Amino acid sequence: MHIQATGNVYRAKAVTGIKTVTDILMFGAGGHAAAVSDVIRDIEDFNISGVIDDSPSLQGKCLFGSTVIGGRQQLYMNGLDTMAIFLGIGDNLTRARIARSLGGREFPVLVHPTAHIGTNVSLGEGTVVMPRAIIENGARVGAHCIINNGAVVGHGSVVGDYSHVSGNAVLAGGVNLGERCLIGIGGCVLPNVAIGQDSIVSAGSVANRSAPERHYIMSPGSRIFRRFEK
Amino acid sequence: MHIQATGNVYRAKAVTGIKTVTDILMFGAGGHAAAVSDVIRDIEDFNISGVIDDSPSLQGKCLFGSTVIGGRQQLYMNGLDTMAIFLGIGDNLTRARIARSLGGREFPVLVHPTAHIGTNVSLGEGTVVMPRAIIENGARVGAHCIINNGAVVGHGSVVGDYSHVSGNAVLAGGVNLGERCLIGIGGCVLPNVAIGQDSIVSAGSVANRSAPERHYIMSPGSRIFRRFEK
Amino acid sequence: MHIQATGNVYRAKAVTGIKTVTDILMFGAGGHAAAVSDVIRDIEDFNISGVIDDSPSLQGKCLFGSTVIGGRQQLYMNGLDTMAIFLGIGDNLTRARIARSLGGREFPVLVHPTAHIGTNVSLGEGTVVMPRAIIENGARVGAHCIINNGAVVGHGSVVGDYSHVSGNAVLAGGVNLGERCLIGIGGCVLPNVAIGQDSIVSAGSVANRSAPERHYIMSPGSRIFRRFEK
Repeated sequence: MHIQATGNVYRAKAVTGIKTVTDILMFGAGGHAAAVSDVIRDIEDFNISGVIDDSPSLQGKCLFGSTVIGGRQQLYMNGLDTMAIFLGIGDNLTRARIARSLGGREFPVLVHPTAHIGTNVSLGEGTVVMPRAIIENGARVGAHCIINNGAVVGHGSVVGDYSHVSGNAVLAGGVNLGERCLIGIGGCVLPNVAIGQDSIVSAGSVANRSAPERHYIMSPGSRIFRRFEK
Repeated sequence: MHIQATGNVYRAKAVTGIKTVTDILMFGAGGHAAAVSDVIRDIEDFNISGVIDDSPSLQGKCLFGSTVIGGRQQLYMNGLDTMAIFLGIGDNLTRARIARSLGGREFPVLVHPTAHIGTNVSLGEGTVVMPRAIIENGARVGAHCIINNGAVVGHGSVVGDYSHVSGNAVLAGGVNLGERCLIGIGGCVLPNVAIGQDSIVSAGSVANRSAPERHYIMSPGSRIFRRFEK
Repeated sequence: MHIQATGNVYRAKAVTGIKTVTDILMFGAGGHAAAVSDVIRDIEDFNISGVIDDSPSLQGKCLFGSTVIGGRQQLYMNGLDTMAIFLGIGDNLTRARIARSLGGREFPVLVHPTAHIGTNVSLGEGTVVMPRAIIENGARVGAHCIINNGAVVGHGSVVGDYSHVSGNAVLAGGVNLGERCLIGIGGCVLPNVAIGQDSIVSAGSVANRSAPERHYIMSPGSRIFRRFEK
């Protein structure tokens, strides 16, 4: 299910395309889930009813103002079996695997109020647009993507399902990312470049030409020098 | 004509320095024009009365909620001959050439409401400040510039006419860019560095010393490696 | 003194943790002080009562709407001897030295209204969070730090006292910066990397592994090429 976002309608509240969601389960208890919980706090339409995590040591703990109510099997209990879920998982492959195993549930789209969404933008289910991210006119973002803090998705670009555009990374106009791609923090993709599925543009690197699937695009690494004698 | 921006006055509306503009012609029909049309949508003071593009295949089509009403010669028809124009053209040389050929028209300054403009900032006619861009205290930006999504122009920096600071690029304090410079996406210019006219800091590169006119500043290119065997 | 920021409470006003401050002395008269004065303008709770700078040539001049009322010795005059001070000084070592020499004064925390602060974030006294910066859930920022325009401090990261995360730089999650570190404009630090005190990640460089104290992390430098024959 893709959701068509037009203008500002995403900026002050979450949109599911179906109905207003008030209760949601957060799947995951790590740092990315914590950051997403702040997005939910600022959207104000949502309430995190509980956190789902398979780790036994976390059960019953309170995270992001909610309790870890159990692992995956808990999702099929009465009262939880139809509730909307958000996958607060940063790793693309893990997020994709879990999303597929939970087919049939509702995955809302979360857009932070400070994000800028152009016209004719589509956002797939389960995707989060983090604070200050920008998605320009005509871009299409797939399902279960992360458009992270301050990232830019240029006009007419396409982001495949389960991909992650990290903090302050930039896709210029007309970029095409396959599924499960990772653009590291500060990474850049030049206009009209296509990146195959499961590829990675490493942090701070610039993809100036297209790359096949399952490849790395890497700039020369940094080095560490002693600053001065002690 | 330079316009002095002071404080928040640019943030909720467009400013022309002369009068309130309500009708505007967009010159150009590509991706940058589409992104600028979203800026106009969010400023709310403007109405795009029509799109001008020389391409015969686009005539009569509807773009960004407006109709392509003709090519350049149409600008001199009754009713259009005094209307304000915005050049929605990403290429610096093309934008400069067209601006000069249209001398005498009014070119408004467009500042997105989410942009942050410091005090004592000046912005030249026909310049657009895109979402989330920051222009710090005392900076001077010339005419027909693009300060793109999330870009930073540091305190006291100067940006020459027809230059383009791309998405998430950063000019530190006291930078001096000549006319028609391009700072690529994610590019950086260190404090007090001067870049001559018609020069390019390529995407993701760092200009750590001054450069003459008509030069490239380029970091070593990225490479593509196979990620793992299939 | 650390201040616990929770939710949006920092976004529309300054917080001192003690009381509402209305009058403040700006220490420093350079470009960074000018940019900070714009933050104060936008916070609206503050009034800059005067500027302190040791340079004789600046005495009596009007900067950022306020007068340079004298050098450091002036701070101990009647009426100024208990006033809150903000150190508008970009250099980490200088800022640290002056902060220590002024022990016992009140140093407010300044957070621009457009900054995004997650839950469970702590900010030390004298720290400024510039426009559009993001500090994610659970991050701890020390005293007298600069989190500059558009910078991102990821979830659970720690920034040591007197450090500076420059414009559009990104700390991923779980990063640990020591005291007096400088992350240059556009610089990136990967998840869980630790950078020792007094170290520098130069502009546009990526720290992909930990570094000891007093070291540089530098990517290969850019080069300058002639663009084309004149």
